[in-house]
Amino acid sequence: MRIARFSIDGNVAFGVVEGDSPPGSTDGLVLNIIKGIPFAEFETTGTRVPLNQVRLLPPVLPSKVIGIGRNYAEHAAELGNEVPATPVAFLKPSTSVIGDGDGIAYPSFSQEVHYEAELAVVIGRLCRDVPHERVKDVILGFTCANDVTARDIQRSDNQWSRAKGFDTSCPLGPWVETGIDLATAANLTLQCTVNGQQRQLGSTSDMVRSVEDLIVHVSEAMTLLPGDVILTGTPAGVGPLNVGDEVAVSIEGIGTLTNKVITRG
Amino acid sequence: MRIARFSIDGNVAFGVVEGDSPPGSTDGLVLNIIKGIPFAEFETTGTRVPLNQVRLLPPVLPSKVIGIGRNYAEHAAELGNEVPATPVAFLKPSTSVIGDGDGIAYPSFSQEVHYEAELAVVIGRLCRDVPHERVKDVILGFTCANDVTARDIQRSDNQWSRAKGFDTSCPLGPWVETGIDLATAANLTLQCTVNGQQRQLGSTSDMVRSVEDLIVHVSEAMTLLPGDVILTGTPAGVGPLNVGDEVAVSIEGIGTLTNKVITRG
Repeated sequence: MRIARFSIDGNVAFGVVEGDSPPGSTDGLVLNIIKGIPFAEFETTGTRVPLNQVRLLPPVLPSKVIGIGRNYAEHAAELGNEVPATPVAFLKPSTSVIGDGDGIAYPSFSQEVHYEAELAVVIGRLCRDVPHERVKDVILGFTCANDVTARDIQRSDNQWSRAKGFDTSCPLGPWVETGIDLATAANLTLQCTVNGQQRQLGSTSDMVRSVEDLIVHVSEAMTLLPGDVILTGTPAGVGPLNVGDEVAVSIEGIGTLTNKVITRG
Repeated sequence: MRIARFSIDGNVAFGVVEGDSPPGSTDGLVLNIIKGIPFAEFETTGTRVPLNQVRLLPPVLPSKVIGIGRNYAEHAAELGNEVPATPVAFLKPSTSVIGDGDGIAYPSFSQEVHYEAELAVVIGRLCRDVPHERVKDVILGFTCANDVTARDIQRSDNQWSRAKGFDTSCPLGPWVETGIDLATAANLTLQCTVNGQQRQLGSTSDMVRSVEDLIVHVSEAMTLLPGDVILTGTPAGVGPLNVGDEVAVSIEGIGTLTNKVITRG
């Protein structure tokens, strides 16, 4: 099931995405509005609106986004880094999150902003100290993420909060796919295009640490709340974005997250 | 004015702290309950409850806490670090925040947890790209913070999210003092005691970068929301905490934040 969050007539709602659409289009998709929130049992109302007549919002409003660095060996190598002994976990604040179609505002303090296509895990319930066998129970689903990074600032700052935490640096969407199990999540093709040209092409099967391992690791330190998001790292092929570029992250079985790079207002 | 947040009869309320108390005690203090929230103009209700009959909560619920590393030269030196060219900013998640009197739960993955007494700035309004001359307008007030740090994990992890972001690693309180201007904030004595013995004694006049500089720097990257908190760094004298210890952060003109170190349940 695909669950989107959107605004309609000034209100915010969740809806189940129904229908099929041609590649690269949302024509034909409709939203069956949900009564309640998707973190508990819910019913659909039967009220349907065409998806391309609403504004999609980030599919969840995370209290925190936990990113994982260097989780694909080839990507670690392309930036001259080794695969770390423990996962490199960093935080992106809620103020960095945007949705499908929102603008990535080029930050004033960077001259080298990079895209990073990533599989994102959306947490479904409050949890901590999650054992391996329970990981499946705490996941609501998966979505696409772009871990937008000011690479020059990442190099010059000791910690990555500015480089990876600036406003609009965390596009998420277009929706949460709840029908992917952990075995499937471990073997998905993901790609990134800029202005239609392919820049990253990878598979989650190349992740150094699995979704299970990452959730065990992170939840040992931090309580996870419904809607919190864990980014699982990016494959090789990262590169620059410029104002005016359209960047798209596509993940097999989920969908495509598209954002344009804009001047910061 | 001192504004506290507390729970009473299962409800959460803000209150203005009135009265005086002997050092190390809250006897004689009462809470004049606020109608509304302290981020806008508010009135007091005149309903008063003794402070030592309620449970104090973290004085705000921050969407994010931004910590600043190595902002006192002597502290940077004691850990073998240099004062950085730009402020070292890191994030502590909302799930790390606890209030006065709450337990600091010793994390399972560390054998070396340290206290760090810090002056905390509480943001009063949504803002970004704050210029120097406007900094005073975006501050609600100041409180005491303990930037509890798993020092061994800080050394071994590349990024500090686990070392400084684990559950209970961000005690804040006991209340927000709104009557301190920026000039006064730049010359406050702060100290940390463990089991009554002094471990840190410093002055905010030794901060490498001022509160103004830090807010300008951080808000250039991230929108700040009402209730967000900026920690301004710790003076020299950091050291270990053990289960059973009582750690207290006192700042001149604000008050004392006391927490006990407990076993993680």
